[in-house]
Amino acid sequence: MVYLTRRERFSAAHRLFNPKLTDEENEQIYGPCANPNWHGHNYILWVTIKGKVNPDTGYVVDLKQLSKIIRDRVIMKLDHKNINTEVDFMKDQFISTENLAMGIWKELEPFIQALNVELHSVKLQETENNTVEYFGK
Amino acid sequence: MVYLTRRERFSAAHRLFNPKLTDEENEQIYGPCANPNWHGHNYILWVTIKGKVNPDTGYVVDLKQLSKIIRDRVIMKLDHKNINTEVDFMKDQFISTENLAMGIWKELEPFIQALNVELHSVKLQETENNTVEYFGK
Amino acid sequence: MVYLTRRERFSAAHRLFNPKLTDEENEQIYGPCANPNWHGHNYILWVTIKGKVNPDTGYVVDLKQLSKIIRDRVIMKLDHKNINTEVDFMKDQFISTENLAMGIWKELEPFIQALNVELHSVKLQETENNTVEYFGK
Amino acid sequence: MVYLTRRERFSAAHRLFNPKLTDEENEQIYGPCANPNWHGHNYILWVTIKGKVNPDTGYVVDLKQLSKIIRDRVIMKLDHKNINTEVDFMKDQFISTENLAMGIWKELEPFIQALNVELHSVKLQETENNTVEYFGK
Amino acid sequence: MVYLTRRERFSAAHRLFNPKLTDEENEQIYGPCANPNWHGHNYILWVTIKGKVNPDTGYVVDLKQLSKIIRDRVIMKLDHKNINTEVDFMKDQFISTENLAMGIWKELEPFIQALNVELHSVKLQETENNTVEYFGK
Amino acid sequence: MVYLTRRERFSAAHRLFNPKLTDEENEQIYGPCANPNWHGHNYILWVTIKGKVNPDTGYVVDLKQLSKIIRDRVIMKLDHKNINTEVDFMKDQFISTENLAMGIWKELEPFIQALNVELHSVKLQETENNTVEYFGK
Repeated sequence: MVYLTRRERFSAAHRLFNPKLTDEENEQIYGPCANPNWHGHNYILWVTIKGKVNPDTGYVVDLKQLSKIIRDRVIMKLDHKNINTEVDFMKDQFISTENLAMGIWKELEPFIQALNVELHSVKLQETENNTVEYFGK
Repeated sequence: MVYLTRRERFSAAHRLFNPKLTDEENEQIYGPCANPNWHGHNYILWVTIKGKVNPDTGYVVDLKQLSKIIRDRVIMKLDHKNINTEVDFMKDQFISTENLAMGIWKELEPFIQALNVELHSVKLQETENNTVEYFGK
Repeated sequence: MVYLTRRERFSAAHRLFNPKLTDEENEQIYGPCANPNWHGHNYILWVTIKGKVNPDTGYVVDLKQLSKIIRDRVIMKLDHKNINTEVDFMKDQFISTENLAMGIWKELEPFIQALNVELHSVKLQETENNTVEYFGK
Repeated sequence: MVYLTRRERFSAAHRLFNPKLTDEENEQIYGPCANPNWHGHNYILWVTIKGKVNPDTGYVVDLKQLSKIIRDRVIMKLDHKNINTEVDFMKDQFISTENLAMGIWKELEPFIQALNVELHSVKLQETENNTVEYFGK
Repeated sequence: MVYLTRRERFSAAHRLFNPKLTDEENEQIYGPCANPNWHGHNYILWVTIKGKVNPDTGYVVDLKQLSKIIRDRVIMKLDHKNINTEVDFMKDQFISTENLAMGIWKELEPFIQALNVELHSVKLQETENNTVEYFGK
Repeated sequence: MVYLTRRERFSAAHRLFNPKLTDEENEQIYGPCANPNWHGHNYILWVTIKGKVNPDTGYVVDLKQLSKIIRDRVIMKLDHKNINTEVDFMKDQFISTENLAMGIWKELEPFIQALNVELHSVKLQETENNTVEYFGK
């Protein structure tokens, strides 16, 4: 069993807020992240899959295929977008890094499984000091 | 003469567009950077000053003072903000990295000069592949 | 279950030595790390907690609270200090990176648990080539 | 139980190809990585061992010893070499990052065990976007 | 005048040797870099151009155009290649980082000038410890 | 003319203080950097030389020679040392990053000149946010 990690990047806008609360209440909970005029980040995404090495190729999986899945299902939907208003798989959710990592997992899992390998983790860095990782459960 | 560089960071939303043009024309020029719903970045800022070493302290300038100026004049105005709509010194400008670096220079220069040192350069990284630097002329 | 990692940094002096041994014996075991006149490092600390995402906020834990705990309990005690002589929770220990990571774990654990999440790991980088990680057992 | 990671680096040439296939077939599978004239990388290697902290030294293991093993058994055989033709422990294998990580594990394991600690993982970065990790099974 | 830097990367094989000398003489001068079986690197390339900011766009130059030039003229010729045998603009030269940076400059300069900006520098990193920079004279 | 930069690292202890002032006065000027019990850093040093490319080798200078000079004249004297008390070329000086960069310049210059190239700059990073650079005048 070998673990293979692909790094991809996207830049996007978001804000953190609860639509049932007032702007003041949101700022109390989320601080500057609640700014109604948005802010944004350069997110870094690491997707790790695991599987056996194919004896005919030396690969667990073809990285070009893995990269294409991540780009088609995740990066193209997020890069240079407003995550709160433009990303189908994050609709009606709080756009925290935690929820975004879980949303990316759900987007990727069926396509990764179709490669006959297992999705192991989705790691997402929001700033150089803050990172979340999700293992699917 | 010694050059001293302080690194600071901010996360902000922006878009690139010319208000005299249509959305289609803007997208033709600026591509996904024109997205009317905004996107954002983790910007990294390096401010370099130059001056003589003070023989009484061994410092060109007290880094705490320099850092305070950069935070008060620049980071607090930009961090977790929408650069197009919320930043006084960028009003009515295209929010390109080039213009932002020049705007930061103008904000900082009088306060740096008050420390009796010279502002040498403002370097601004928008993504890990794209960086601009401005030397004041 | 989502894993959330906060990065913090501190700069400190230390030395490695066994007070029961002579300087020569210490240098034989610890090499230049035993220098009686001290040396120092820019340590990088990653604290990872794990927990369920709060459906009312989208957060596992408020990063500002987590960061405040790490700063109050660990960074303020270590940053710009001599770890051998000035850090209460490292008293009478060998100041190896291993022991320091375990000491930081003990300092943080009760305060992390009070946030109703679990401390998962303390990772500590001494130089860009040397890192230790401790999972609490 | 503490985990200790040592980072080392090597620069080497390789190509990916199946000697039973034609150049065209190899290029179809491996793309530019099949180039018969070779290409190369700056590989980064992280070796993680785990063990108990020795109460007489504060160390899990002496890093100088660990580093010497990695250099003698792995780096000296790979650095500035052609991995396909010059590295004994990779003979007759596809030189994928996966196989290389597993080959390094096999080279290191007996020497790490002789230190009375356990080899936990071999992580190998081929480019800043592609990394594999192997845990020995 | 603003300076704009684009970062690109390529992975390639090379060796350093003087065809007029024996293998032994080459190894004496170039050490392991003379290995007749090749070795390789992940090179990082920074291309810096300078120019005035266009008041109609906020750009010194369209980064997509700049990136396309670097990719078409340099990266496609070097990435996953053997620099000694496959790169037209390095023919009959010693493949040192110095000569490679100068060769890249000559490849890029006419195309950069056609954008009505000036090529300022070509910086090339061979390993994390070794970098050269060329300013065109 | 090509510029060649070599990166080296060292870990050392220091403090900032003026022996003519009291501990209270020193803490007022230097803050936690004045701690009489020392603190320390992982310094990163970049030494840049400039010269013509030797047509017989493709090198400005042999990097092994340059690295050996930096290690013998600078790194061996600083690494795992107390800069205030153990480093001959910093005796009776304030151990600021500014003065340390200038001291390293003076140590290196005659040996670099003996290679028939010019010392261009000494850049010294104290923390990831603070760097100084000295060009010899």
